Amino acid sequence: MTLIPPCAARVGDMLETVATPSLTIDLDAFDANLAAMSAYAARHGVALRPHGKAHKSSEIAKRQVEAGAVGVCCQKLSEAYPFARAGIGSIHVSNEFVGADKLAMAVELASHVRLSVCVDALSQVRALGDAAARAGVTIDVLPEIDAGQHRCGVTSEDALLALVDGIAEQRALRFAGIQAYHGGIQHVADWSARKSEANRAADIASGYLRSLDARGVRCGVVTGGGTGTVEFDAASGVFTELQPGSYLFMDGDYGGIGWSGELRWRHSLFVLSTIMSATRPGMAVCDVGLKGLAVDSGLPRSVHWLDTNTAPALSYVAANDEHGMLQAQHDADADFAAFAGERLRLPPGHCDPTVNLYDEYVCYRGERVTDIWPIDARGLSR
Amino acid sequence: MTLIPPCAARVGDMLETVATPSLTIDLDAFDANLAAMSAYAARHGVALRPHGKAHKSSEIAKRQVEAGAVGVCCQKLSEAYPFARAGIGSIHVSNEFVGADKLAMAVELASHVRLSVCVDALSQVRALGDAAARAGVTIDVLPEIDAGQHRCGVTSEDALLALVDGIAEQRALRFAGIQAYHGGIQHVADWSARKSEANRAADIASGYLRSLDARGVRCGVVTGGGTGTVEFDAASGVFTELQPGSYLFMDGDYGGIGWSGELRWRHSLFVLSTIMSATRPGMAVCDVGLKGLAVDSGLPRSVHWLDTNTAPALSYVAANDEHGMLQAQHDADADFAAFAGERLRLPPGHCDPTVNLYDEYVCYRGERVTDIWPIDARGLSR
Repeated sequence: MTLIPPCAARVGDMLETVATPSLTIDLDAFDANLAAMSAYAARHGVALRPHGKAHKSSEIAKRQVEAGAVGVCCQKLSEAYPFARAGIGSIHVSNEFVGADKLAMAVELASHVRLSVCVDALSQVRALGDAAARAGVTIDVLPEIDAGQHRCGVTSEDALLALVDGIAEQRALRFAGIQAYHGGIQHVADWSARKSEANRAADIASGYLRSLDARGVRCGVVTGGGTGTVEFDAASGVFTELQPGSYLFMDGDYGGIGWSGELRWRHSLFVLSTIMSATRPGMAVCDVGLKGLAVDSGLPRSVHWLDTNTAPALSYVAANDEHGMLQAQHDADADFAAFAGERLRLPPGHCDPTVNLYDEYVCYRGERVTDIWPIDARGLSR
Repeated sequence: MTLIPPCAARVGDMLETVATPSLTIDLDAFDANLAAMSAYAARHGVALRPHGKAHKSSEIAKRQVEAGAVGVCCQKLSEAYPFARAGIGSIHVSNEFVGADKLAMAVELASHVRLSVCVDALSQVRALGDAAARAGVTIDVLPEIDAGQHRCGVTSEDALLALVDGIAEQRALRFAGIQAYHGGIQHVADWSARKSEANRAADIASGYLRSLDARGVRCGVVTGGGTGTVEFDAASGVFTELQPGSYLFMDGDYGGIGWSGELRWRHSLFVLSTIMSATRPGMAVCDVGLKGLAVDSGLPRSVHWLDTNTAPALSYVAANDEHGMLQAQHDADADFAAFAGERLRLPPGHCDPTVNLYDEYVCYRGERVTDIWPIDARGLSR
């Protein structure tokens, strides 16, 4: 008696038989996004280092590298393990970390891959340098500068220079460049306003680069940027490397902002759900709520019937833990009882934390499942 | 080269060395909550069937049964598998389900445990009856009545009686009672208002019971209730069985409502986090955001330093994907740089979806880790 829940789907299944809720990828849209970002970065002469925190899957990271990426970013050290295990040779941890548990992971990873990390404090530089020297590994270090987000990163040129000097004192560390990321502007709705904000962040980075230059410090890498600003960052002449993640999937939040430039992204990520109750006029209940959809950036903004063209249009109006409340858009008396068992495709409001709720992607072309990809960094938040 | 992230903690470790973010349980508070609810239910002569959706851990379910629970509830069929595997003999799926994948799980579970499920549609009764008969199993069925939440459940006495008749036609199904759950009133802040709402839900259930009685149908079980209403439900004389879940842990949302009655619950669930950056006056950044804290019911409402009494008081003011933004409560110029590496205990705003982000509980007494409990139903949302 093993008593393991059955798998959600097998390759060859039709979407209408996939168990729900499942996290699915429309591979035609996914491939188009993957190719478009790779081509865009190549055309602009910037390195592409996509962010693994968005997809948390080594299968996807391998495809990004095959398409030309120089490696991947991770936000956490533990998150980097499945990517390293899968053979991704260059990993940048785009974040600060403190503590013995973190240092142990950093030096272990650095013995398997080319590892770079962010710092914004001298104490962190010294602890990392000691740990790396003891372990006999070399770690690339990129001080983070605060490009306007006011989260992590140094806030003065003196602080940056002190870090550069501190890194130089550590024989097991190598100053590799700087990170300038502004997450807060990625989702600015107006395209022109977003462009102005991105250019302001690039100007801040430029100022720090000039101070390094004045000191005769060569800054190899300037890394940053996200899906919302990538075309401004690529054109800025400041960044040598871009870190977008969400472009592969899109989500409700990114889908709702203006895209007036050259780049357009297709929605490729959908939660597949089933209508499981409909006892009240104008309402139906589906089988996915807070445990299958992150709602920090809002509820799914659209609801797509998978198989029926006859059912009334629905809006997803509330997420309970395991239930999604759906309301008829036009007919308050619509009876959905006959649609129990019908499946819905829901684009998540925010892709990153939604991905982190699932153990696998069910990938499809047309309506047929063609791949199952493990989300092998799911839950690895240390 | 295995390249697996190291475990977060071992039994015997001190909390100050546990890797972060980790989900931790204060076992003294947990034990007090466990014992208080068991005693309360026993004193009022109602069965206790705690909800496994809150903790998703068979280790906890076993302790609840040892303390007198008649079994557990699950909200999803896949969620029931680890509980069945661990030997929990009686499981109630307090929810409707539709589809071949779900029926297959129901009949497999029913061959190992005494399984009861909810229905609110005749089509569901027939599909379940067919599947159970084919598999040679018997399933207890409890029609759900809408007790005021307007989510699932029948909305008329005729609809209930039709379900009872439909169940009677299925030789593999047994009418076992009704479910009357009103999730929406669990968090009503004012204790008296919550009492009124709970009594109104119980009155609705009473009406349905009278209609069954008038038809000569014996209703064995009336199941429902949650942490917020359990003392009203126990006193109502309507419910034979209560389904609370959050009482073991508490959370920010439940902690913020009024508790004027006999029952008080202690906070036992905390996310352990580390300060990992502090470059700006009055601000610090910790290592847990949306991927380690569900924020649908708000951010952590308090921040507790683990080891220091000298650090300024902080508020958790924003959650990014992997960062928590912390602000000094009183001193806008406070410098937190020296507190990098210090640990914080954060009570989640909403326990259920936060638990669903982690693979294990790190359990402690005082400051020492005494148990690691797998969250073996984590992610099982089908």
